[in-house]
Amino acid sequence: MILKDILDKLNNTMSSLPVPIQAVMKIAGIVVVSFIIIKLGSIIITKLLHKQSLFKYGIHSKKINTILSLSISVFKYTIYLIAGIIILSDVLGLKSILAAAGVGGIAVGLGAQSLIKDVISGFFIVLEDQYSVDDLVTIGEMTGTVEDLGLRVTRLRNFNGDLYIIPNGEISRVTNHTRGNKAVIVDIPVSYNADMEKTVEAANKVCKAVNEEFYEVITDLAKVIGITTLDRGGMTLRVMAKTLANEQWGVERRIRVLVKEEFDRADIKFF
Amino acid sequence: MILKDILDKLNNTMSSLPVPIQAVMKIAGIVVVSFIIIKLGSIIITKLLHKQSLFKYGIHSKKINTILSLSISVFKYTIYLIAGIIILSDVLGLKSILAAAGVGGIAVGLGAQSLIKDVISGFFIVLEDQYSVDDLVTIGEMTGTVEDLGLRVTRLRNFNGDLYIIPNGEISRVTNHTRGNKAVIVDIPVSYNADMEKTVEAANKVCKAVNEEFYEVITDLAKVIGITTLDRGGMTLRVMAKTLANEQWGVERRIRVLVKEEFDRADIKFF
Amino acid sequence: MILKDILDKLNNTMSSLPVPIQAVMKIAGIVVVSFIIIKLGSIIITKLLHKQSLFKYGIHSKKINTILSLSISVFKYTIYLIAGIIILSDVLGLKSILAAAGVGGIAVGLGAQSLIKDVISGFFIVLEDQYSVDDLVTIGEMTGTVEDLGLRVTRLRNFNGDLYIIPNGEISRVTNHTRGNKAVIVDIPVSYNADMEKTVEAANKVCKAVNEEFYEVITDLAKVIGITTLDRGGMTLRVMAKTLANEQWGVERRIRVLVKEEFDRADIKFF
Amino acid sequence: MILKDILDKLNNTMSSLPVPIQAVMKIAGIVVVSFIIIKLGSIIITKLLHKQSLFKYGIHSKKINTILSLSISVFKYTIYLIAGIIILSDVLGLKSILAAAGVGGIAVGLGAQSLIKDVISGFFIVLEDQYSVDDLVTIGEMTGTVEDLGLRVTRLRNFNGDLYIIPNGEISRVTNHTRGNKAVIVDIPVSYNADMEKTVEAANKVCKAVNEEFYEVITDLAKVIGITTLDRGGMTLRVMAKTLANEQWGVERRIRVLVKEEFDRADIKFF
Amino acid sequence: MILKDILDKLNNTMSSLPVPIQAVMKIAGIVVVSFIIIKLGSIIITKLLHKQSLFKYGIHSKKINTILSLSISVFKYTIYLIAGIIILSDVLGLKSILAAAGVGGIAVGLGAQSLIKDVISGFFIVLEDQYSVDDLVTIGEMTGTVEDLGLRVTRLRNFNGDLYIIPNGEISRVTNHTRGNKAVIVDIPVSYNADMEKTVEAANKVCKAVNEEFYEVITDLAKVIGITTLDRGGMTLRVMAKTLANEQWGVERRIRVLVKEEFDRADIKFF
Amino acid sequence: MILKDILDKLNNTMSSLPVPIQAVMKIAGIVVVSFIIIKLGSIIITKLLHKQSLFKYGIHSKKINTILSLSISVFKYTIYLIAGIIILSDVLGLKSILAAAGVGGIAVGLGAQSLIKDVISGFFIVLEDQYSVDDLVTIGEMTGTVEDLGLRVTRLRNFNGDLYIIPNGEISRVTNHTRGNKAVIVDIPVSYNADMEKTVEAANKVCKAVNEEFYEVITDLAKVIGITTLDRGGMTLRVMAKTLANEQWGVERRIRVLVKEEFDRADIKFF
Amino acid sequence: MILKDILDKLNNTMSSLPVPIQAVMKIAGIVVVSFIIIKLGSIIITKLLHKQSLFKYGIHSKKINTILSLSISVFKYTIYLIAGIIILSDVLGLKSILAAAGVGGIAVGLGAQSLIKDVISGFFIVLEDQYSVDDLVTIGEMTGTVEDLGLRVTRLRNFNGDLYIIPNGEISRVTNHTRGNKAVIVDIPVSYNADMEKTVEAANKVCKAVNEEFYEVITDLAKVIGITTLDRGGMTLRVMAKTLANEQWGVERRIRVLVKEEFDRADIKFF
Repeated sequence: MILKDILDKLNNTMSSLPVPIQAVMKIAGIVVVSFIIIKLGSIIITKLLHKQSLFKYGIHSKKINTILSLSISVFKYTIYLIAGIIILSDVLGLKSILAAAGVGGIAVGLGAQSLIKDVISGFFIVLEDQYSVDDLVTIGEMTGTVEDLGLRVTRLRNFNGDLYIIPNGEISRVTNHTRGNKAVIVDIPVSYNADMEKTVEAANKVCKAVNEEFYEVITDLAKVIGITTLDRGGMTLRVMAKTLANEQWGVERRIRVLVKEEFDRADIKFF
Repeated sequence: MILKDILDKLNNTMSSLPVPIQAVMKIAGIVVVSFIIIKLGSIIITKLLHKQSLFKYGIHSKKINTILSLSISVFKYTIYLIAGIIILSDVLGLKSILAAAGVGGIAVGLGAQSLIKDVISGFFIVLEDQYSVDDLVTIGEMTGTVEDLGLRVTRLRNFNGDLYIIPNGEISRVTNHTRGNKAVIVDIPVSYNADMEKTVEAANKVCKAVNEEFYEVITDLAKVIGITTLDRGGMTLRVMAKTLANEQWGVERRIRVLVKEEFDRADIKFF
Repeated sequence: MILKDILDKLNNTMSSLPVPIQAVMKIAGIVVVSFIIIKLGSIIITKLLHKQSLFKYGIHSKKINTILSLSISVFKYTIYLIAGIIILSDVLGLKSILAAAGVGGIAVGLGAQSLIKDVISGFFIVLEDQYSVDDLVTIGEMTGTVEDLGLRVTRLRNFNGDLYIIPNGEISRVTNHTRGNKAVIVDIPVSYNADMEKTVEAANKVCKAVNEEFYEVITDLAKVIGITTLDRGGMTLRVMAKTLANEQWGVERRIRVLVKEEFDRADIKFF
Repeated sequence: MILKDILDKLNNTMSSLPVPIQAVMKIAGIVVVSFIIIKLGSIIITKLLHKQSLFKYGIHSKKINTILSLSISVFKYTIYLIAGIIILSDVLGLKSILAAAGVGGIAVGLGAQSLIKDVISGFFIVLEDQYSVDDLVTIGEMTGTVEDLGLRVTRLRNFNGDLYIIPNGEISRVTNHTRGNKAVIVDIPVSYNADMEKTVEAANKVCKAVNEEFYEVITDLAKVIGITTLDRGGMTLRVMAKTLANEQWGVERRIRVLVKEEFDRADIKFF
Repeated sequence: MILKDILDKLNNTMSSLPVPIQAVMKIAGIVVVSFIIIKLGSIIITKLLHKQSLFKYGIHSKKINTILSLSISVFKYTIYLIAGIIILSDVLGLKSILAAAGVGGIAVGLGAQSLIKDVISGFFIVLEDQYSVDDLVTIGEMTGTVEDLGLRVTRLRNFNGDLYIIPNGEISRVTNHTRGNKAVIVDIPVSYNADMEKTVEAANKVCKAVNEEFYEVITDLAKVIGITTLDRGGMTLRVMAKTLANEQWGVERRIRVLVKEEFDRADIKFF
Repeated sequence: MILKDILDKLNNTMSSLPVPIQAVMKIAGIVVVSFIIIKLGSIIITKLLHKQSLFKYGIHSKKINTILSLSISVFKYTIYLIAGIIILSDVLGLKSILAAAGVGGIAVGLGAQSLIKDVISGFFIVLEDQYSVDDLVTIGEMTGTVEDLGLRVTRLRNFNGDLYIIPNGEISRVTNHTRGNKAVIVDIPVSYNADMEKTVEAANKVCKAVNEEFYEVITDLAKVIGITTLDRGGMTLRVMAKTLANEQWGVERRIRVLVKEEFDRADIKFF
Repeated sequence: MILKDILDKLNNTMSSLPVPIQAVMKIAGIVVVSFIIIKLGSIIITKLLHKQSLFKYGIHSKKINTILSLSISVFKYTIYLIAGIIILSDVLGLKSILAAAGVGGIAVGLGAQSLIKDVISGFFIVLEDQYSVDDLVTIGEMTGTVEDLGLRVTRLRNFNGDLYIIPNGEISRVTNHTRGNKAVIVDIPVSYNADMEKTVEAANKVCKAVNEEFYEVITDLAKVIGITTLDRGGMTLRVMAKTLANEQWGVERRIRVLVKEEFDRADIKFF
């Protein structure tokens, strides 16, 4: 019952103090509690993020730190804001501050909605490692190499040297061209008058030559897949292979040159 | 009436305690009740989900556990949140906390709306078994094999080796190409000068050959369906069959090669 | 005035009881009233639905039961929810529960909005018998046979064997191909050099032959409709008929083959 | 001052009654007032609708009755709902019911919003007689004959025999093909080598023949309008007429046949 | 100070009356004030609209009356509604009516939103004289003559005789083809082999002939503008003029016939 | 302390007056304050706008006055509205007026939202001088000369004489064709068989002739830019210049005629 | 305890003052606190922005000042607004001002939402240096040189001399063509009859010549990349290089001329 006595006393002392001093003491109490909550919250957020990153996607520690400091900042300012509102409204008795904050919050919210959306999207792009700098990606109708991956915008450099600047909130479906081996696909137009056997034989010769020439980058050997279309204009013969990422274009161009030469040699008409 | 006496006494004791102690006791009570609700809720959710999964779609137990732990987490944090608001607002008398929570909730809600939508969509994709890893699916204009089916995003690998990353909330209409036998459809252009009888005979020969060669994967035998278009450019003859999933392309290509050879032999013009 | 006395007494007795006991008694009363409302409501819903189904669309009784149990569940949980809020807020005096429920409700509502929309749409698809299992339907750009018609999603199997999974809330305009006889439409390209009389005569011969061959499925006899286009490339002659559903393709293909043979015989040029 | 005495007395008697009896009496009063409002409202709605329909669009009385009973139902249930809320909240003092009703109303509203929109649209389609059963209409990209015009959906049967089911709320711009005479438009391709005079003369002959043959359905006589395009490919000569609705196709096809025959006779080249 | 005494007395008399009589008197006062406001408002609206219409667009007085009576109706029912709420809520003390009205208002508002939008749009179409009956207008992709311009829908009759029914709220960008003179534009394909001088001379001859023949409707004389395209297929020579509205088609067709005849005479090739 | 005494006295006098007289005095005070605020606000708005217009865009003073009187009107009615609400609610104690105003405001707001948006857009179009009467502009897919620039709609007259009526709120991206010199671009198709040197020489001759003929309107001399495409069909040679606005079409047509004549003379083939 | 005594005294003095004087003193206090907050806030904003700009993007100091003064203005008026509401509502006790402000705020917010969005977007375009005056950018479908970059709109001048006026809020994805070297890409159509070796040799000669002629602007030497398409029409040979920004068009045109001359010399057919 000693605790009870102490509390009673504390209560009485409090009540006997003049109102302004009571207010100052209450404010001090709220500030102290806020700091404790922020410290505890920061520790918990740090632990959660480290656990997430270490086991699942293996994100580089630099990125983790960026996300971490962002998360803690957001948490800190949220607590500040709530503490401020409690002080102004409950301690100082400015009732209207609540309404003002509410209306103001909605106003800012409407205006800054896309900003918030951008940052949240950026957060997930990094956290889930959807793409990183130097990856070749397609976002909407824009294809390019990632030059900079910020929290609000992503900057891509396309093949022509143009710089695309895309707000992260506009990014939903991403195509990443640099994660895994890429297919080599060459479609060869063949006339209906061509001899089937001779044509396939010529194409096979080309495949063999390419497989030898590019043995370092080819992961699935080039081979003739077969006839993929029977159009009114003619047939299409397809040759396929797989290479390391970004090597597919060179192999495709080489196959085309060899096909042209081999077909000329074997006197096969393209159309 | 003993119960009444006890309650009266309890009531009186409570009232005679100093305010802070009353508050601590009330908080303790709310915490205890919250834990009981969480325990009970978890058991009910577990039962409901197991019933659902066992009888209807036969989802693998690993997936069930993922969904289960997610559902329980969501339930748990909701109860925590409500308990926290009751303590701050009703027990400690911080009226403004309610308004702050409301405005904050709307703000976070607007920002995180698409995150919530993603997770709910992911939940239903798994629960209804719309697709699973290694299925070939089309989502919007993106076709690929499912590499990873997370709660927030689905990752597809397309034919070219590109990786598609699609937020689940963006997924509404799904085409799953791996659930059931697939049609083989070969459209052969035929000149108006061709002899009908001879043409159909040649196509029948091809069907017979294919049915023998691919007897292991063909589920509906290949046959000539008939003339499907009479265009200004010529006629189109269609050959159809059904195969096991993912085998249709090989059969189609084989039919085309055989048609070319057979038509050459029978001297039938394509156009 | 006896009633008055009883009520006075009851009132006094209530007031003299300790607060917790009063609360328990009030809660018991609310629970009893809730159960009575649920019972009554269930009976009314059952009657309304049976009346609706028997006279208007003749839906199979199994479907009626599905809808019925769904409607009653929704009604039941709504009453539970309202009773719970009344108990927590009015009886136990937890004012903040209302605000918490409000904000929570809006949050869940935003997230689950499309789920609710899916189920309501599914409800109307069944109630109005828009389509049922095995009907051939077109929804948006997806055409297929209905494999499964659930409350949240509809599953279609298309001609190629692909499985479409469409949330019901995404379904607005439906085309049902299986309710009624289907038109057979064959457009025959005809050269400007062709003799009109001879051409129509040949087409009439084809119609007669087809009407005999398919007399079991043809509901409107095939006949030559006339010239439907005078393009720079040539004329188009149209032949039309009506058949039972799903028989139109076979008839169309047969007409094309016969037209080709008959035109060859009469030496009429297609272009 | 007698009224004043009576009211004073009534007031005193009321106050001296026990609370439950006062409540029952108040509820009875609210119910009686509600019924009076419903009766009065029904009479007013009936009068308004009859006035509207008699003078403006002459809608069939059966439709009027459908709309009438719908309008009255909606009015009736709205009054019930308001009365219920007043009883629960003001008389029984369940303050939380208001909040519950509000949140519930918003929730149901969000879910059922498209249902309400469908019915309101259906209401206006009937009230303004936009189309009725057996009219040929185009809604969005769907053209067909109206088979059923319900309050929630419209069912169209297209030319091929497909059934379109369209929610009324999705219908905004309607094209009605059955209200008024329809134009017959035949565009004849003419070679630049053709003799202008001879060509126009031949087309005039065709017009004269058609005007005689179809004198019963033609409302504006067929005539040669002139050259409507001078393309790189050739000229286009247009023939126009007007017929009763749904007769235009037959006349157009007849004109085409006659043009072909007349041009052959006069040796005019189409291209 | 006499006023003060009267008011004091009035106040005292009021307070001494029994509550129901006070209420009746207050209601009477509110009703009287409402009627005064409606009268005053109607006069102001009438003045404002007449001023607007007389000086700016010169709208026919019949239309003004339609708009006027609509505006006054809307104003009247708004005042009725506010008076009703004040009576129910402030005088009779039914606090819940406010909440009920609020929720009900939002519900009706959501449902009837497009109705309100239609009427407001219709109001501005008439007020700004965007189009009137018998004008040829294009709204979205629908072009036709205005048959009926109502407050909720506009009805157009197109060239083919189809009736378009368009809700006014769907109308944003309007093209009015009947306000002002219309351009005649004839593009003549000319071969690269043609002699430039001879071609222009022939075209000038045509212009002169047309200017004489149509002198009554041509407002800007027809003349050769020059070569407007140099395509791979040939050149295009443009002839232009201006005519009264709806006369442009006849002139264009006449120019084409004359061009064909003149080019034939001068032996100029079209392609 | 004299001020204090006066205020005390005033206070006492106020309190001793009967309630209605107090109310009248308060209302008078609010009205006076409102008028003072309106006067002050008008002066500030006038100053701000004049500063804005004089230094930045140099808008004609007539437009400034239009904007000014609009801004002041809006400000005035806003102050009236707020004063009215304060009188009704705080002075007369009609609490429900606030809720009524709120709900009414939302309702009107939803309906009139696009009206407000139109006026705000119109305001900025004038303030930023995006276009003025007689400018040739493209808004969306509509190109024409500005005939009238109102606060709610913009009216354009296109080349054909059609009148476009576009609500200002629908205008976002504007293309103004009349602010600055315009490019003359003529693409000449050239055959692969042509002699390069001769072709360029001929084109240069044309440029020289045009530069002399149009020296008054040409701001950048016409010159041959080079070959801009190497297509399968042939090459394209581009000639460019710059002229005053609206003179570019005449120059382009003249270049085309001269090119045709010069190429004929030099015997260069177009294709 | 001296502080306590002072505060007690102050409190007592305050209470003994007449109400109007108390109000004036409170208002003075609020105004003073507001000014202090504004001063402090301005200093903090200035520091934050300078830090941001110096280290990250190196924006010109003039832009920084624009953003700075804008940010401080926004902050200042926000504090004024909140102070004004606190004075009107808490000190003067005009409760309704809050509701009026709320409703008014929402109304203005809805109307001015796109204005706020424009300014926020403009703020980020400048802050992140997405583009500056004289850069060539593509925004949506509009490509041009930036003439003016304001806070509300961006003005582009396109190649033809048209002026595009685009609200910043409509700008999301930006393509900046002036940041980095640009690719030169020339696709040469080559006939299947061409000799492969001779063709590549000719193209190499062209590359060498171009590399010498443009050595000042070429950053990556021009070279033959290979065959990029094997179409039914022929092959395509690609030549690539990189140049400084805006120099790529001249180099491309030069390559085309040289290719034409070199191919003529070597007698290689384009098609």
